[in-house]
Amino acid sequence: MVGPEIERLIQLLSRLPGLGPRSARRAALRLVEKREALLIPLAAAMAEAAAKVKTCAVCGNFDTIEPCAICADHRRDASQLCVVEDVAGLWAMERTGSFKGRYAVLGGLLSALDGVAPEDLGIASLVARARDPLVKEVILATPATVEGQTTAHYIADRLADCDVSVTGLAHGVPVGGELDHLDDGTITAAFRARRRF
Amino acid sequence: MVGPEIERLIQLLSRLPGLGPRSARRAALRLVEKREALLIPLAAAMAEAAAKVKTCAVCGNFDTIEPCAICADHRRDASQLCVVEDVAGLWAMERTGSFKGRYAVLGGLLSALDGVAPEDLGIASLVARARDPLVKEVILATPATVEGQTTAHYIADRLADCDVSVTGLAHGVPVGGELDHLDDGTITAAFRARRRF
Ligand SMILES: [Zn+2]
Ligand SMILES: [Zn+2]
Repeated sequence: MVGPEIERLIQLLSRLPGLGPRSARRAALRLVEKREALLIPLAAAMAEAAAKVKTCAVCGNFDTIEPCAICADHRRDASQLCVVEDVAGLWAMERTGSFKGRYAVLGGLLSALDGVAPEDLGIASLVARARDPLVKEVILATPATVEGQTTAHYIADRLADCDVSVTGLAHGVPVGGELDHLDDGTITAAFRARRRF
Repeated sequence: MVGPEIERLIQLLSRLPGLGPRSARRAALRLVEKREALLIPLAAAMAEAAAKVKTCAVCGNFDTIEPCAICADHRRDASQLCVVEDVAGLWAMERTGSFKGRYAVLGGLLSALDGVAPEDLGIASLVARARDPLVKEVILATPATVEGQTTAHYIADRLADCDVSVTGLAHGVPVGGELDHLDDGTITAAFRARRRF
């Protein structure tokens, strides 16, 4: 009864995190109501992001330049490599302002259930980066969940014969907590108190 | 630090109902992660909706045809006119399947505070429609809020000299409740038990 165009809009919006079927319907209506102020600009912003935003081949971050602004920034400390599950985790670390090194974005976590293997997470290239003599520390900032910690342990094992200290975030990350849901102070505390893995 | 394109995407997404700044950030990331499956199709669906969806000049509904499918459907009962605040209210009524008449979408509610006057809601054209001899009943289905009921009373007064019965939704609409948040059964019950205004 809403017409296929709006139905499709609702269906796609409902796939965004935080929007269920009902809120997707409300969002679609708001968009059509605010055609000039919201719908057209958002369609354009999405098309622009689709055209311009790339995945950094070095670290896995999203940016419009390649390598990304973090990898290209020579003031960032090349001796520290922070391993995060996804770009949300990278953003969460960046918001704290407490980390000045480089990143490795896994793009997921090891999971026998979901069939996610080390190859899927680019762990070989992470190990290769860690072998660079400039790198002194690899900080495992995967979530404090079972899969996050399984992944961290696996990476720590793979790094055992590299000449780096392997650390993990410590105090402050609640068990079962996702990095992106934490306040900046908690992440900062966990980063400062990071422990040898 | 996220780049102006993603920053703009986050800022626009955060204006959707149901998405705060944090969930807008997560939504933007999901979009960029699912570039082919979600970002590009959603940008296209929005552009298509922007190009094709119009406001029906008769009733205020959104549709790709004009007049809208409801106004154009000659099987709909021309003797009943249901007055709703917005298209969300119209959709909520339609979902119940209990109303087979026509609509008048106000596009808002009277509000001294927000400076919304009768002219802004097209109430004169609603009164003109109600003067059509075919129309026998005007059902005021504005929300059960102060502004919703103020608007309903104002419309009832304006319809006093029209030869129509003016009714309002009754049992089941909780005080302070918005139509779009109700389950279909409640709306159906309220519709069936509608009372003379
Ligand atoms: Zn990078
Ligand atoms: Zn219409």
